Formats: sequence, structure tokens, C-alpha cells
Amino acid sequence: MNAPDTFAHLLARTREPFPASSKAYITGSRADLRVPVRDIALTNGERVSVYDTSGPYTDPQAVIDVKKGLDSVRGAWIAERGDSELYAGRKAVALDDGSKSEDAARLAQLRLEAAALQRQPRRAKAGANVTQMHYARKGIITPEMEYVALRENGKREWMAQYMADAEREKRLAGNPMGAMIPKIITPEFVRDEVARGRAIIPANINHPEVEPMAIGRNFLVKINANIGNSAVTSSIEEEVEKLVWAIRWGADNVMDLSTGKNIHTTRDWIVRNSPVPIGTVPIYQALEKVGGIAEDLTWEIFRDTLIEQAEQGVDYFTIHAGVRLAYIHLTAQRRTGIVSRGGSIMAKWCMAHHKESFLYTHFEDICDIMKQYDVSFSLGDGLRPGCASDANDEAQFAELHTLGELTQIAWKHDVQTMIEGPGHVPMHMIQANMTEQLKTCHEAPFYTLGPLTIDIAPGYDHIASAIGAAMIGWMGTAMLCYVTPKEHLGLPDRDDVKQGIIAYKIAAHAADVAKGHPGARARDDALSQARFDFRWQDQFNLGLDPETAQEYHDETLPKDSAKVAHFCSMCGPKFCSMKITQEVREFAAAKGVAEDAALAAGMAQKANEFNRAGGEFYVPIHRAD
Amino acid sequence: MNAPDTFAHLLARTREPFPASSKAYITGSRADLRVPVRDIALTNGERVSVYDTSGPYTDPQAVIDVKKGLDSVRGAWIAERGDSELYAGRKAVALDDGSKSEDAARLAQLRLEAAALQRQPRRAKAGANVTQMHYARKGIITPEMEYVALRENGKREWMAQYMADAEREKRLAGNPMGAMIPKIITPEFVRDEVARGRAIIPANINHPEVEPMAIGRNFLVKINANIGNSAVTSSIEEEVEKLVWAIRWGADNVMDLSTGKNIHTTRDWIVRNSPVPIGTVPIYQALEKVGGIAEDLTWEIFRDTLIEQAEQGVDYFTIHAGVRLAYIHLTAQRRTGIVSRGGSIMAKWCMAHHKESFLYTHFEDICDIMKQYDVSFSLGDGLRPGCASDANDEAQFAELHTLGELTQIAWKHDVQTMIEGPGHVPMHMIQANMTEQLKTCHEAPFYTLGPLTIDIAPGYDHIASAIGAAMIGWMGTAMLCYVTPKEHLGLPDRDDVKQGIIAYKIAAHAADVAKGHPGARARDDALSQARFDFRWQDQFNLGLDPETAQEYHDETLPKDSAKVAHFCSMCGPKFCSMKITQEVREFAAAKGVAEDAALAAGMAQKANEFNRAGGEFYVPIHRAD
Repeated sequence: MNAPDTFAHLLARTREPFPASSKAYITGSRADLRVPVRDIALTNGERVSVYDTSGPYTDPQAVIDVKKGLDSVRGAWIAERGDSELYAGRKAVALDDGSKSEDAARLAQLRLEAAALQRQPRRAKAGANVTQMHYARKGIITPEMEYVALRENGKREWMAQYMADAEREKRLAGNPMGAMIPKIITPEFVRDEVARGRAIIPANINHPEVEPMAIGRNFLVKINANIGNSAVTSSIEEEVEKLVWAIRWGADNVMDLSTGKNIHTTRDWIVRNSPVPIGTVPIYQALEKVGGIAEDLTWEIFRDTLIEQAEQGVDYFTIHAGVRLAYIHLTAQRRTGIVSRGGSIMAKWCMAHHKESFLYTHFEDICDIMKQYDVSFSLGDGLRPGCASDANDEAQFAELHTLGELTQIAWKHDVQTMIEGPGHVPMHMIQANMTEQLKTCHEAPFYTLGPLTIDIAPGYDHIASAIGAAMIGWMGTAMLCYVTPKEHLGLPDRDDVKQGIIAYKIAAHAADVAKGHPGARARDDALSQARFDFRWQDQFNLGLDPETAQEYHDETLPKDSAKVAHFCSMCGPKFCSMKITQEVREFAAAKGVAEDAALAAGMAQKANEFNRAGGEFYVPIHRAD
Repeated sequence: MNAPDTFAHLLARTREPFPASSKAYITGSRADLRVPVRDIALTNGERVSVYDTSGPYTDPQAVIDVKKGLDSVRGAWIAERGDSELYAGRKAVALDDGSKSEDAARLAQLRLEAAALQRQPRRAKAGANVTQMHYARKGIITPEMEYVALRENGKREWMAQYMADAEREKRLAGNPMGAMIPKIITPEFVRDEVARGRAIIPANINHPEVEPMAIGRNFLVKINANIGNSAVTSSIEEEVEKLVWAIRWGADNVMDLSTGKNIHTTRDWIVRNSPVPIGTVPIYQALEKVGGIAEDLTWEIFRDTLIEQAEQGVDYFTIHAGVRLAYIHLTAQRRTGIVSRGGSIMAKWCMAHHKESFLYTHFEDICDIMKQYDVSFSLGDGLRPGCASDANDEAQFAELHTLGELTQIAWKHDVQTMIEGPGHVPMHMIQANMTEQLKTCHEAPFYTLGPLTIDIAPGYDHIASAIGAAMIGWMGTAMLCYVTPKEHLGLPDRDDVKQGIIAYKIAAHAADVAKGHPGARARDDALSQARFDFRWQDQFNLGLDPETAQEYHDETLPKDSAKVAHFCSMCGPKFCSMKITQEVREFAAAKGVAEDAALAAGMAQKANEFNRAGGEFYVPIHRAD
């Protein structure tokens, strides 16, 4: 176990701004509405501005004290609405940290540290509903919605030069596969999407530190990273560093899937220091409270856990309410049965009691809690396939239908809702998942785990699943839950988390480009232009991982001078195709473009004549000898 | 530079069989027709047999002497046909190793070593044509065709148990996207595919060491790895070790893209020690011969180089004959111009002389050479896009049309032909490439480089391109040329080569599964079953990279006992969803499946009634309090 100061040092490194990058803010209609972006200064004077999930950590001006937590972003907005109130809150009990928790002295110390983080909880006033969906449906554009609009657009000015060519724009026009993405996202558009349930803004009123973001088919595709483990945490810094590391590389959301000791206290640290929405699976903690015996779970324990976590500020709950008693036997002949932890816990409970799941029977009670805090539903796919062989089966789609039914109930309460999806799906079966989800769940955002397209790549499942994730993202999935190289094998370490996130940033961006998200392609174009211009440093800095790109380059050509030289190590100084192309261009400009064009026109006409003649393809060509 | 014995040691390590694996052979209609497979012994007594590209190197019985080269596989078959003859061959000249070659003493030593490798060249007798396509069109089933049929089928027996469930087979039935893959590949089917030009068997009669394989849309999707560099080679072992390393991880073909010194001699070593087809880009060597000055290239130098390499045994040549004078100006407004090295060399030549490319005007002369040795065409896409922004443009498709025209000419000479494709293509534009290629090139096999779906992932382009490769493989591409993490940045090292190959094995297998290639899914099922049964060792051994899988697992749970324990580190001993599922199964079996089924039937009926009623989705559910 490392000493705290090691982690403080680690956090300092993790906070370093990206190369040539600076934090900037787009200010909205009020002074306290400031949307962060990362501006990258190129060597040719251009500035490229990109979406930034890293929060204040990459702002050198920001003073970070993880024992205090982040500054509030939304506190004033929440308070101004006047529909919520501070209250005493549920009293924490020892069991919150699990039935077999840390030794008493250690836990007392941890709790003492966490106490400094506490914000007094807030909830809706009696009869009020504080969800973004509720406001949206009343026609109110909240600051959160405006924030999201500005964030989705980014700085469009710099993108314009890369989108100026009409031929190119027509040729590259995306295929949105049914999405309807406007050229500019307005706050009103955000409101409308949230009102329709086609997007959510996960933002618990007890998480005022969150920088609002949207999850929806008509917005940029988002990614989620999972953190948390069953090991004993050594310090606040260690937990927070994991979070900061994940958002540094681009995680839009983070789920805390801790299942071990001290999970209540750990969660305090994570939420208070997180600028991104935090999701959890409350049944995990509830199970800890009953010593791991699924049969001993009760609605009362679960309800109490929901309130506990809602007061802490968790932004969305995965609730496996679609695992109904009647569906369980549908999994009996599967190759890998039920692989969702939450799903298998609930299945066990249902079978033990031979009763319908309390998550299903109490669904409206759950809604009543969610709307008091604006916790969003992430309706869990407890019956998702655990291997390609079980994909798209009756159990999976039966549950999906129930999730659609529950979505309607949640929406009756104006509770924001997204739907979790698989998992393991071969490429040719991915579209069916998306189509079924859109139809069954009334366009509520889809949030899939991959899917993995094959099962023979343990150690490389981030790649096997990035293929499926890119495809389903293109088809309409709003958020992609990452998979790390350690999937199926063990707990991801720091580098695994990074590898998983980068693979999923690739998938999400590939989806945005394919959908034709306005401006998404501009960063690719800026990088390609830098590549062509031999602006090596710009090429590195515009990439998803500048450090690795530079490191790879420097392995072969370590000299600084090489970074502006007009060749790379792939081809060497004489053999560079890009250099030759430049010469070709100059040659073409100097003599003969007009001539060539005339020649080409003549040839094209000839080709047309030939094609009209049809049939015979072979035309004798000149032979020299 | 490491000492030779270091490389000998390295090669010994690279030759180690995979865990629990043994080399086996499927014998065909004659005793010398023995197709290698890798049999994996599982801990439950099952044996899983997989396609094996690694050649004799992973056979502990095989005595390997890289200074002599591999034993002949096809020598007798070639000789028996009686249509070729040994001849003196072209006399090697100093310039073959480049204009600025190694110092004389060193080169003399290298040549002396290579001399031991030489086989006397063979070519078609006057008027004969020795291509597999020629035989196929005459109705002859060659041993090579039978070999391919046996190899594509593998041992189908073990697969049967994973394909026995009718419901599953129906649900998972692939979408072949126009491919027509029979349940069993017969030698006659192979002959027919080769005769139609829909598949090629790259197998130069001067490469008798090759283990025949097919590249075609109705066969397993293949992958190619590139080796070779511009550095001075230190020894035979080093070059051969690179090759052995690539085929160990699954490269079906290897291209030697060396551009530096001693390239003739290096190629001798590679071909003589390669059990997989070797491809080259002859214009690279021709350019070396003229000191790197593209304008100084002549047909005569190029022709001489083709003969030189054909005599050495190169199995396919990338020829950029589609880069026509009239198309060059079409690239002038591109963001990244011409990025193919071969393409830019030919563009430069055309512009300098203001003449049509000699590769185009002499195309039938080239065919005349190819058919004397059975060298296959890989018609190069010299005008492929170098970034997403240039994808699917006029230049690219103009060249593709010419490649289709040249395919017809090659086929007139019965020369086997495949078509190279991009490159950089966003997801939504991939299908257009495949459709256009199939139509324009008359179903000649497509061989694409990726494509990369986005441009912002330098350092991770193996992932950005595996997405595109998997998709285009599904759509009908026959072979995928790998991309390593170092793409665009530098020369791949040993680990980069492995990373690139694994990413592409994933893409190719994902494509096979999506197409519904018979039996392709069985390995996934076997692995998934092992996963569910907690047979950890089997899970590792069935994966693409057993060592990495085990290493990742052992990082968290290093004890041997954990490998048979019924939990993994993701969930811990208490929380394992698969364990819970097993309990659920037992519970279901013991009491209540019938009951549940009745209940489910009742619920389903209820749901149907409800759906028929239409409209109102919300149905009040029981509230506990």
C-alpha cells in the first residue's frame, strides 16, 4: 500500500495539462454558466478546441483539495429554482459500509476524513419534482440545458475552415441512421429532447459539482468508465486519482461499482470530487448490507439504500427491474446463463421467494424517490447475453420489452431514463438490438456495454468490443460503456483503464463521424492536414493520446529536428510518399494541369463511349516489344 | 546490433508450441498432402482444432535450419504437372541489392550465406501457363486446391457439438452479405472459385515451401502482415525470426516491404523460410536500382525486377498499374494527396515524362511474366485516400475502375488477381467501397488496408482500423492488411507486429462469424463454455493470445488454485454472477421450471392481450406502502 504523499504526487501528474493545451470556457447567458473546453495551440497558429471531460483538474488555476471536494457548479441554479430544500437527511449507520467492514479504528478515521466532504442533502419540497425532464416538459430551459447546448456545439468557428468545401461536405455527408442532429444545438433543442425522453442530463441536485452533459442519440456519443473495486482503499487520494485518470482520457460518465468494504465512505469521496455524473448499482450495496445473501434482500433495505445514495449525490442508478420471475427460466438453456451481477442477484431472490422482483413491484415507489433528487434511471439489462451464442435470445428481448414498459412508467413521473444494452453480439445481430430498443423503449437513450463481437480474444476484449461499440453507436446508441483489456480476466489497473477509454473514444468518435455529427470530422481533418504538412507536434497533440504518439515516433526518430523534417521513419528521407506528392502538386501547378484535365476529359468521354457499348471489357493496349 | 546466437535463442522461443497445443495434420488424397492444424487439448478431455498459419516452426518434430530453408511442400506436385522446367535463371547483379548497398565484404558474406538457400529457378515451358487459374479453368483440381479445401474445413467433427442446437443455429445464422459459402468446402468448389476469379491461391512455382491457402470472399477472411525495413539486417536469423513471429500470431500472408540495402538477399532468406505466401511491391526494388530517382525508372528495369523476384519465389506482386496519367490531377485538391508509396512513385514518373504509366501500357507484358511462374497480381490502389476527408473521391474510384479493366486483362491470361483497397474510410462509407469493388472488379478478391475509420488516434490506429476491417470483411473483403500501433509514426517493433496481428485476427474472425462461416463460431462457443464452467486454463488456451490472457489473470489472482475456483477476481468469491447462475439453474431444475413456464405462458398471453388493446402502456402495479 503506497503512502498518501505518493498518491498526492500521482494526482499532481494526472492533473498536468495536455501538451500545448489550455483550459478555456464558453460563457453562456449568465456569468456562472461557464462551459469548459480544451484549446490546442497548433504550431501554424491555428487553435483547435475540443470537448473536455477532465473538469477543473486540468486547469492549472484551479486549487484542488480532494479532502474538501470540488467547487459547486450548479448550486445556485438548484437553489434559485426554489423547489427543493435542505434537510437533515438519513443518518448514516455502520452497515452502510458493509456488514464486514474495516476495523473500527480505521473506519472511524476514514469517516472522519469523509465528514469534511459532506454537503447537507437536499430534496424536492413536498409535492415538487426536481428532474430536468419535469422542467423540460413544463417548457422551462434550465441552465443545465443551456450548458449542454454550448458544450455540444463547442467552438464551431475553428471547424468552419475544415467544412468549407462543398464537394467534400457532400461526399462525406454522414448517414445518421434515423438520428436528427441539428447543425447547431440550441438550448430549446436540448429542452425538447429531454422532454421527449430522447436525452437525459444526469444531474442529481445533491451533485452540484457536476458539469452538465447529455446522453442522447442526437448528441455526441458518450462513453462511460467503471471504477471501484473490492480492495481496501488506502486513502482519499487514491480513489480520486482513479476518477481523475478516467476523465482525463475522456470518460463522460463514471460508474462506481465498488462492492467491497467502506463503500458508503468511498462514494462520498468520489462524488464530491467528480465533475462528471456518477452512476452506481445500488443492489450491490444492498447486498453488502445483508452479508451477501441475495435471499435476505428486502424492499425496505433497498429503498433505504436508494435514499442513502441519492442524498450522497449519485446521478444515475442501474436498476435491474426487468428481471422478472417469469423470464428466469428462459435463461436455463443458455450457454452462459445470467452474467449480469445485478441480474443474477435478482434472479436468485425471485427464485428463492418464488415471487415477482421487488424492483418491479415497487417500481413506482422507486420513481417517487428518484424524482425528489433527479436521479436518472439506467434500466439494467440483467438478462443480457454473456456470450455471442446467447445473443438476441428470448430472455434478452423479453426483458427489453419490460424495460420499455418501465420507461413509460418512469416518464409518467418525469424521471429521466436510459436503457442498458448488451454485451455480447456478433456484428450481424447488432442492428436488430438497436431497432428493437428504439421501438420498444420509445427512443429512450440506449447505453450498451460494447458489444463484444467475438469471444476468443481474452486480453483484447477492448478491441473485440470497440468494433461492436462503434457500430451500435453509429446506429443510435447514446452512450458506450467501456471494456478494458482485463475484461473476463481480472481487475483493470491504471493502464487498462486508459486502454479501455481510448478504445472507446475511438468507437464513439467513429460513430459521430459516421452519423455526420456537425463538426465531428474537423479534428480528423486538422490532424490529417498536420500530418500532410509534416507538423509532427501538431499531429501528436491533436490525437487522443499525444504522449504515446510522440513516444512511438521518438523511438525510431528521436531527434527533435526530425519532428519538422519532411519525412518519417516509415519511408525514410528519400522514399516519403507525402514528399513526392508535394512535388507532384508543384509539378502539376507549374505545367500541365489544364492539359491533363483536357486529356482526362477526353479519356472520360472515351470511357463513357466504351461503357455505352457494353459487353466486351478487354481493350488491346499498346505493347512495347 | 545483437549477436546471431541471441537471435537463434529468440527463434527457439518463437518456435515454442502454444500451451496445451500440438501440431496435427489432415491427410488428403495422397500421402504428401498433409494440412496442418493446431489441436488444443482442453482439461475436460475435449480437443479443439484450429487453423494454423505457423508452419513447421511450431512442430517440435521439425528440424529447422534457417540457413538451408524449409522443406518443400509442393515440389513434387509442381514437377509432376510436367509443364515447367528448371533453367539457369537470371544472373544476380550487384545492383539487385540496391545502388548504395552494404560494404563489399559484408555483402559478400551475406550473399555467401544466401547462396546456400538458393533453389534453381523454374518457369513454364514455352507456351505453357502454370497458374492455378489456368488449371482451374481447364477443369483440373490441383493438390493445392484440395489442400485449401481441407484447410478451410479443418476438423469439423469437434465443431458439431457446438452447432447442434437448432434454435441457436437459426437465431445466430450469419448474414453473408452476398457471399455463398457452402457447408463443406470441396476441392471442386475451390477449383470453381479460382476459375471464376473469385478466389486466388498465391503459390509461385518457385516457392514450393508454401502451405497453400486461399484468398476469396467465400473462404475464411485472411490477414496480411508487413515486415521488412530499411535498416541493415544483421543476420538471417533476425529476418526469419520476424517472419516466424508474424505467422505464429496468425498472419496468413506476409509482405516483405524492405526498401533499404541488401533487399535481394534479404528476400532470399524470407522466401526460403516462409510457409506462407510472400508478397512484394517490385517498384520499391526497381527504385533502389535507379538510386531513388523515380523519373529514371524504365520498363526494362522494372521487367527485370519482376523476373528476378519471380525466380526467387515471390507469390504476389503489388502493381500500381491503375495510377494513370489522366487521374493524377484528380488528387491535387486532396487533403493528403497521394499517400501510397508506389502510387506516388508512378505519379511522379508519369508527370516527369508526361506519358502514360509503363505499368499500364505494358500490362500484358507483365501478365506474360506472371503466368510463367504463377505470381498473382495484387493490383495496387496507388490513389487510395490518405485520410477520411479524401475517402471515396473521384481519383480513388477512377483508379478502381481501371483496376477492374486490368482484372479482365489478367484473367484473359489466366493470371490470378486480387484488388487492393483503402485505407481511410469512415464507417458509413465502407459499404460503398465494397459494392463498387464487387461490381467494378467482377468479384476479384478485395484486399484492404484497414480501413481506418477516424484519423485522431495515432498510436492506436490498429484499433481505429480494426473497426473498419471487421466491417469490410463482413461485407466481402477477402484479406485484411494489418495496421500496427506505430502506423503513421514509425517502424513497428516486435510487439507492435503482434498487436497489429491480434487486432486483425479479431477483425477477421468477427467477419467470419457475421458472415456465418460454417464452424467459425464453434471456437467462441468452446471458450464461452470454458468460461462458464470456470475452466480458466481452457479459456486462456482457446484465446488468440493464451500467454497474455493468463498473465492478466494471474496479476490479480496468481494462485494456481484460483484457476479452477468458481469465481474470478472481477466479482470475488461471493459475488460471482456465473456462480449464482449455476445455483439458479439447479434451483430451477429442482422445483418449478414447469410452474414457471406455465406462469410465463400466462404472462405472455396477458402481454399479447395488452398489446392487442394498444395505446395505453402504463398499467398500475402493486404498491407496498
